[in-house]
Amino acid sequence: MTDDLTGRQFDIAVVGATGLVGEMLLELLGESDLPLGQVTLLASAESAGRRLALRGHHLAVRALDGFDFSGVQIAFFAVPEALAREEAQRAAEAGAIVIDCSGAFAADQDVPVIVPEVNADMLADFRERGIIASPSPAAIQLAMVLKPLGDQAGLGAVNVTVCEPVSSAGRPGVDELAGQTARLLNGQSPEVKAFDRQIAFNAHPETSPALQSGASRAEVRLVLEVLRLLGDPGLRLNATCLRIPVFFGTSLAVQLETAQPLAPEEAAVMLASAPGLVVSEGPLGATALEDAVGQDSVRVSRVRADVSREQSLNLSLVADNLRKGAALNCVQIARLLIKDHL
Amino acid sequence: MTDDLTGRQFDIAVVGATGLVGEMLLELLGESDLPLGQVTLLASAESAGRRLALRGHHLAVRALDGFDFSGVQIAFFAVPEALAREEAQRAAEAGAIVIDCSGAFAADQDVPVIVPEVNADMLADFRERGIIASPSPAAIQLAMVLKPLGDQAGLGAVNVTVCEPVSSAGRPGVDELAGQTARLLNGQSPEVKAFDRQIAFNAHPETSPALQSGASRAEVRLVLEVLRLLGDPGLRLNATCLRIPVFFGTSLAVQLETAQPLAPEEAAVMLASAPGLVVSEGPLGATALEDAVGQDSVRVSRVRADVSREQSLNLSLVADNLRKGAALNCVQIARLLIKDHL
Repeated sequence: MTDDLTGRQFDIAVVGATGLVGEMLLELLGESDLPLGQVTLLASAESAGRRLALRGHHLAVRALDGFDFSGVQIAFFAVPEALAREEAQRAAEAGAIVIDCSGAFAADQDVPVIVPEVNADMLADFRERGIIASPSPAAIQLAMVLKPLGDQAGLGAVNVTVCEPVSSAGRPGVDELAGQTARLLNGQSPEVKAFDRQIAFNAHPETSPALQSGASRAEVRLVLEVLRLLGDPGLRLNATCLRIPVFFGTSLAVQLETAQPLAPEEAAVMLASAPGLVVSEGPLGATALEDAVGQDSVRVSRVRADVSREQSLNLSLVADNLRKGAALNCVQIARLLIKDHL
Repeated sequence: MTDDLTGRQFDIAVVGATGLVGEMLLELLGESDLPLGQVTLLASAESAGRRLALRGHHLAVRALDGFDFSGVQIAFFAVPEALAREEAQRAAEAGAIVIDCSGAFAADQDVPVIVPEVNADMLADFRERGIIASPSPAAIQLAMVLKPLGDQAGLGAVNVTVCEPVSSAGRPGVDELAGQTARLLNGQSPEVKAFDRQIAFNAHPETSPALQSGASRAEVRLVLEVLRLLGDPGLRLNATCLRIPVFFGTSLAVQLETAQPLAPEEAAVMLASAPGLVVSEGPLGATALEDAVGQDSVRVSRVRADVSREQSLNLSLVADNLRKGAALNCVQIARLLIKDHL
């Protein structure tokens, strides 16, 4: 549709179209300049028949189960990990190029993990399996900042604390926080369904079950994805992922050592010119709600020295977990794919 | 009143008696075995005349302004920092021993900063100024864990992310979160008064204004207090303090290096026997709401290896910021003072 894309049209599928990320995908695909041909919306059998809008057209949702992907060129997957592992494989075998944000393929070395601003050059590796992984929201944010910092000054040890919103667990997470909050304000006891414990006015010290090592699944995925995005398997990255009672927006507190000296002011200037980042100046740091939700960029603030160590910086990151953290990154991958590889 | 205290009675004052910490002080003083004589409750002129209960007696609140402290032996201060700096000094000059939890004296080397489980031996230093500082909730939690870990294995660099509840800003903070949440659930726009930005369903990347270095006042206070509590001015401690939409309970994500090897399992066993700590086992970590609020102990969970580094551990801490984080620590200081020094 625009000069810098190919002029051809691409038939796509959105798998998990009725979920939070699926809905955001439809919104962003509608706004994008991607040359879309036939668009198929897929979801569970219960959602089949619902109609969703894309570029002014109303499209009926079809059942994923048994759908034949052979006519689809690009399939966006926004479904839980276990389902993605099975169905994305099936879609790829039918000839579709899959862009998956479930995390199912984070450890598969023959599936590239891509953030276009960070490692667009790895995208060609999609040909091996026909699958491209879009990383977790925290990995995307962190890699977008560590990449330019590492290029400039080299990276030593990195430590990150991630505060995840309830929407990282999809619509059930959002409903849980809203429902529990309403019940508590009405003097009723909260119902616990989506998470293991009350989340309203509470914080959970993990977002997913612990593995043998004691690290949570989300923490292991985050570390793995960032190491792959940076192409640095030796990076010393330590992560803790918490869940806080916020609907949208992922917040990160990052502490990092650099191999070369880098003053906080220099780092802030350099990050401000890096793709996809906006650096907040001023006395107050950026918040998820006010500076990230609804925005395409990752917002950096509170860039300051860690005075306890040599060559060490602290900074805060916020981003919209449904946009750059998921749907937007998938759309950007698709755009790059069409522009350079199809 | 009990055998292990002296049998004498002590006339005390609670300054800021109508605040959140003040009310908790009254509750804990009432439950304690401290031999109390005359108890004077003090607050701002607007609160004067209110009646509060202590050990079944109803006591009228008096105005702090102009109050003569000369008959008071121990004065608990639970008021904002600026007020504490002025009035605590006045109380001490009148002969009262002040126990202050405002942070006003964190940097004063002639005022001991005390957590009884950590550095009871420093308490005698109160004689210089007649003032004892009770540290911030995060500093208390962190020092209670770093002290036994350091004694056992030595400490290398420590990195902490603190998630503070709104009650760390007192009743206005609690009212702000409750009011904003209720308005948002009713489709109204939230009013911003106590904090700079909406806190309901949001997270703030700092809890207090930034100093010249970029670190916030709360972060600088935390580091200073922990170094003083541990008696180790060379400790490499880096801190980030966030505010999250939780009413009560401070949560910490801690990463630390030890000088000697210390397996997570060993660390957990050792911490479980340290005073004031309870270690949670099991697949899920402890939460502020369910495991800390209303409890006297600091709860440790998720003790695990930081696999990115040699001799490095991660752990989570939660504690009731009004109890062990403030009022309980002050009462414990008073008990130690009476038992060993008066």
